[in-house]
Amino acid sequence: MADLYLALLHHPVYDKTGRVVTTAVTNLDVHDMARVSRTFGVRAFYVCTPVDTLRRLVARILRHWERGPGATYNATRREALALVRLAPELDAAIAEIEGETGQLPRLVATSARGGPGRRSFGALRARLEAPGPPELLVFGTGWGLADEVMERVDDVLEPILGVGPYNHLSVRAAAAIVLDRLRNGR
Amino acid sequence: MADLYLALLHHPVYDKTGRVVTTAVTNLDVHDMARVSRTFGVRAFYVCTPVDTLRRLVARILRHWERGPGATYNATRREALALVRLAPELDAAIAEIEGETGQLPRLVATSARGGPGRRSFGALRARLEAPGPPELLVFGTGWGLADEVMERVDDVLEPILGVGPYNHLSVRAAAAIVLDRLRNGR
Repeated sequence: MADLYLALLHHPVYDKTGRVVTTAVTNLDVHDMARVSRTFGVRAFYVCTPVDTLRRLVARILRHWERGPGATYNATRREALALVRLAPELDAAIAEIEGETGQLPRLVATSARGGPGRRSFGALRARLEAPGPPELLVFGTGWGLADEVMERVDDVLEPILGVGPYNHLSVRAAAAIVLDRLRNGR
Repeated sequence: MADLYLALLHHPVYDKTGRVVTTAVTNLDVHDMARVSRTFGVRAFYVCTPVDTLRRLVARILRHWERGPGATYNATRREALALVRLAPELDAAIAEIEGETGQLPRLVATSARGGPGRRSFGALRARLEAPGPPELLVFGTGWGLADEVMERVDDVLEPILGVGPYNHLSVRAAAAIVLDRLRNGR
């Protein structure tokens, strides 16, 4: 079984006008994606932001649930948040994963947009079930991952399709569906 | 095709000690579950709370995105929130669905807990793909739907299982996975 990691990038991502920006960290993204990670056997979930203050803020929230008043208030939240790691950028997460596993992770970007050569959920699921290098699933905030990320990844996962043309899920919902599909088949 | 409706109940639900309580409405629940509803062909999404002030607050948020400054700022959000309806309790939603479709909806509760006679995702998916009465999927906030709701529904959907014993997803993540499974197979 290959190790699975998750990363949520707050930079470089697009805003609605197509400009590359840094988004703010959303508290519920951290909680929801940590719970999804714990549920579906993700080894660690990287919250990546270049903004020191925001990393410190998230670190404080994590401390609250790990050792502060939250630790006894809600154990399932503590268990989930124990998977969260902070990184200034994608490369820092990659380096840490390489240090931990001894191998560079394969980078798999997610996108709401289709395109040529998208990797199917079935193909990635099969890869995860076989021995191999760690896989790092990369999610973007805002209006999605900037081209500079899309161009350097090894794979782009196929988009989640609904019943019509509308495909504007929150990143929290998209991450839940992607992990469920990768672990529970389809 | 049977019509599919969604309801999110803020009462009666349990708190962590097993007491029946009324939870506050979480803004991101409304947004995320509206987007999931739009993506997966849900006819309407009922936010149910007995607290008048909270229904008025959500109504104001909806107006902001429908006709206020938000309408031109983010069209995909407006499209999703157009599916949101407010109700003081489950029965009000049921009555409105009956008025709209001419039939009482079948009530399908969701729960993180297993139990006897749970309806499988496959069985409910098949029902949705055939002609039949409308189906109303009921989600609880807090620590889940109170027994008085569980006892009156027609079906309880099987829980979402991960790779281990941990099954504490946010209601936002659970709704995303449930709808994806009901529309996209498994």
